[in-house]
Amino acid sequence: MRSSLDQYCINVSDLARSERFYTEALGLSVTHRIEIPGVSEVVLAGASGNRIQLARHHEQSGPIEHGNALWKLYLDTDDCEGLYARAIAAGAEAVSGPQHLAQWNVSVAFIRDPDGYLFEIVQMHAAQAS
Amino acid sequence: MRSSLDQYCINVSDLARSERFYTEALGLSVTHRIEIPGVSEVVLAGASGNRIQLARHHEQSGPIEHGNALWKLYLDTDDCEGLYARAIAAGAEAVSGPQHLAQWNVSVAFIRDPDGYLFEIVQMHAAQAS
Repeated sequence: MRSSLDQYCINVSDLARSERFYTEALGLSVTHRIEIPGVSEVVLAGASGNRIQLARHHEQSGPIEHGNALWKLYLDTDDCEGLYARAIAAGAEAVSGPQHLAQWNVSVAFIRDPDGYLFEIVQMHAAQAS
Repeated sequence: MRSSLDQYCINVSDLARSERFYTEALGLSVTHRIEIPGVSEVVLAGASGNRIQLARHHEQSGPIEHGNALWKLYLDTDDCEGLYARAIAAGAEAVSGPQHLAQWNVSVAFIRDPDGYLFEIVQMHAAQAS
C-alpha cells in the first residue's frame, strides 16, 4: 500500500489578497482553482512542484484563529535576503531578518503572511560556501 | 530568485504517539530527527518524498488548539479503503468513509489523527477505470 504526502490546505480570510502575496511576494504560481459549495480555493506551487492550497470559506469572517496547531511553513530559496526583502515590501510582518546558521550552513529568515501564517525562508549554501 | 514550498511543521501533543501513527497507520517513514532547545522534532516522508515535520514544544501541555487555520492535509494512496481501514484500526477518528467522486474519478476518505488533524485520503483512479 503506497502513501505519499500531498498538498496541505490552509484557510485564508481574503483569497485575492493571499493569492497576490503568495505569487508576487513569495514567487509561487497558481496551478488551478477549485470552487465547491461554500468554499473557493486556489492551489499554488513553487519550483519543486510542492503545492499549497488556500481556502476561503464563504461563511467565515474575521481574522484566522491560529491556535497552536500549525507552527510554520518552509520556503526554500536561493536568495534568502532577496525573498525576505520582497516579502516585507509586500506587507509581510517581519519576525526575524536573515541570519546565517553555521551549524547547518543555511541562511534563514522568518516572516508572517497577511493572515499571520509563519514562514521560515531557508537558503542552503553549498558545502564550500562560507 | 527561485522559491519552493518545502515541508510544513505541525505541533503534536505526544511525539511518540504521533510518530507511531504516522509510520504504522499512514505508512510514512522517519527521515530525521531534530532537537533544539525546548523542542523535539521528527520529520517524515512518504513515497513522493514530500515531508511533514512534527514538533513537540516541551513547555506546552494539553490538547492541540486547532483554531481555523490549517484545514486539512492530503495523503495520496493507491488503496483508499485499505489505508482508511488501517488508520481507523490504529485509533484514528472516522470522519467519513471511502467514497468515489465521479466528477474527478477519485476515491476519498477523511480521518482525524490522534491530535485531531484532518486528513483527506485520496486515491486517483486511472482514466479508464470505473
